[in-house]
Amino acid sequence: MVRMADVARAAGVSVMTVSNVLNERLPVGESTRARVMAAVEDLGYEVNLTARHLRAGRTDTVAFVVPSFHDYFGELADQVAPLVEAEGRHLVLERTSANAEQEMEALSVSRLQIYDGVLLSVAGVDREQLGRVRTPKPIVLLGERDVPDHLDHVRLANESGALLATAHMIEHGSRRIVALGCSTDAAHTMTTDRRLGWERAHQDAGLAADPAYVVPVSDYTSRGGRDAMLEVIASGLPFDAVFAVTDIVALGALSALADHGLRVPVDVQLAGFDNLDMSSFVPPGITSVDANHEGVAEAAVRLLHRRMSGWTGPAEHVVAPVRLVVRGSTRGA
Amino acid sequence: MVRMADVARAAGVSVMTVSNVLNERLPVGESTRARVMAAVEDLGYEVNLTARHLRAGRTDTVAFVVPSFHDYFGELADQVAPLVEAEGRHLVLERTSANAEQEMEALSVSRLQIYDGVLLSVAGVDREQLGRVRTPKPIVLLGERDVPDHLDHVRLANESGALLATAHMIEHGSRRIVALGCSTDAAHTMTTDRRLGWERAHQDAGLAADPAYVVPVSDYTSRGGRDAMLEVIASGLPFDAVFAVTDIVALGALSALADHGLRVPVDVQLAGFDNLDMSSFVPPGITSVDANHEGVAEAAVRLLHRRMSGWTGPAEHVVAPVRLVVRGSTRGA
Repeated sequence: MVRMADVARAAGVSVMTVSNVLNERLPVGESTRARVMAAVEDLGYEVNLTARHLRAGRTDTVAFVVPSFHDYFGELADQVAPLVEAEGRHLVLERTSANAEQEMEALSVSRLQIYDGVLLSVAGVDREQLGRVRTPKPIVLLGERDVPDHLDHVRLANESGALLATAHMIEHGSRRIVALGCSTDAAHTMTTDRRLGWERAHQDAGLAADPAYVVPVSDYTSRGGRDAMLEVIASGLPFDAVFAVTDIVALGALSALADHGLRVPVDVQLAGFDNLDMSSFVPPGITSVDANHEGVAEAAVRLLHRRMSGWTGPAEHVVAPVRLVVRGSTRGA
Repeated sequence: MVRMADVARAAGVSVMTVSNVLNERLPVGESTRARVMAAVEDLGYEVNLTARHLRAGRTDTVAFVVPSFHDYFGELADQVAPLVEAEGRHLVLERTSANAEQEMEALSVSRLQIYDGVLLSVAGVDREQLGRVRTPKPIVLLGERDVPDHLDHVRLANESGALLATAHMIEHGSRRIVALGCSTDAAHTMTTDRRLGWERAHQDAGLAADPAYVVPVSDYTSRGGRDAMLEVIASGLPFDAVFAVTDIVALGALSALADHGLRVPVDVQLAGFDNLDMSSFVPPGITSVDANHEGVAEAAVRLLHRRMSGWTGPAEHVVAPVRLVVRGSTRGA
């Protein structure tokens, strides 16, 4: 067992200096600091970080709790990370598999102790369950579900995003637009809000929004999008455009359309939501609602940072604006 | 401040029982356990998890340290998570931006203390730096770089994967195959190994592998792949196939080919590496070397779990086998 005194001897400094460096209690000159850290490294001295955290009441770690690690959340997390790092903390990701129980578990008092704060992308728990949440640590919720007023929350302008995409395709001649992966189910706020935007675009243009064109998907994967699109094609329902609830679902639709020789955008216009990196590159380019990762990340980290700095004011509910990125899959490009 | 005695009173049990439940020291009946946990929840009692960890020497948490959160690593992490969870631990992700300093920092004795073990995807540090690593905690390295013998490591069969993809396109008539994103740089093991596979496929077929066809990319994004492909097209170098070093790079190449009216696979065959989910769906489907996420995740978690169970034998170096998934972007489909 290496002791602090051994490190001090190797670095040619006092034990107090070693302690100051390791606990960041007092300013220490850079060359001294480097000498101490080299000795720590050489000797394999274990800084007792857990014990230090107990004393300091600070862990320098923020958790971002997400339904899954890849696609949308991976891209968003890569925007969140530098903002958290800029405040001298590091970010860790945990996943819940969109499971309500695991989301509540992530907010349990015991789990929160190893973090200074938590960002939680809500996908499983409902408003009522969240209403019971009283945490000793700052948390900020993300995502498209309704949440109680007492919790900070950042969500997207889902309805206006879907409206932009749908209106754009109406403007370029489509009249029979499948709302793929959208829903009339009030429990699924995101898919319902996007369906409302699709509806409102029709109303704004003086058109009827036929509920037969609201087509759910079994899951929000490309496979789910592809399968649902194939069923629409097989059903004989006439359509000349697809508004897909996410880019991942849009990619599945594109695959199904290609298999049936339906040309995008000549025969069918296609738009998605999220503006994933891949949507710029999949030929002919997928028109998509930019989910404003940057704005969401910035708002979420700003709210969390404010709480971590001791602010105890009322919760803020941010709706991050979105914009449409037009590419080759629609006729406006 | 809620005390353990308050929880005991609310739950109608002894303080010792509360302590046994919270510290999982002794078996406690399920109904008693539920009653105690309900009281903990109601009263907002903070289990002092950090202190408990200090006593138990176990944090029930494993870190997976990755260069970035999205695409390849996000998909791999979603395979690793359930395997770690199956052992009663939860997985957290940290990212290093492929930065050598941040990778060494992740292995520093102080950071390791909050984890039972660490999986590190090496992208920045070199073999020599890793040679100095002596950790008090179990770690397993992943990734395509050479690592010192004393550390457990899981890598892919990069060379044979690239050979499979290249040989498949040679078999289906291509003779001038761009090795996009490959490299002759010995420091970049992954891109060099994949270039070696591309070379060996030529040798096996009795063809010359012209170094002019090894085209680096400025970065391993679709943008990087697209830009490099556009330069190849502009240069006038004749080619009839592209082996892209990753699917993300392949997608960029596909975008550039489409812009120039080059038909895949009629004019140009295209294959990638990683078999990302999107590669099944991007028309006409991207032929790709399956990076065997499942096998890599399984081997890495197996090695880590063995170490966490106290095993102190010699390090194991696993090379996970790969296979080719043929789709519409090559003529063999």
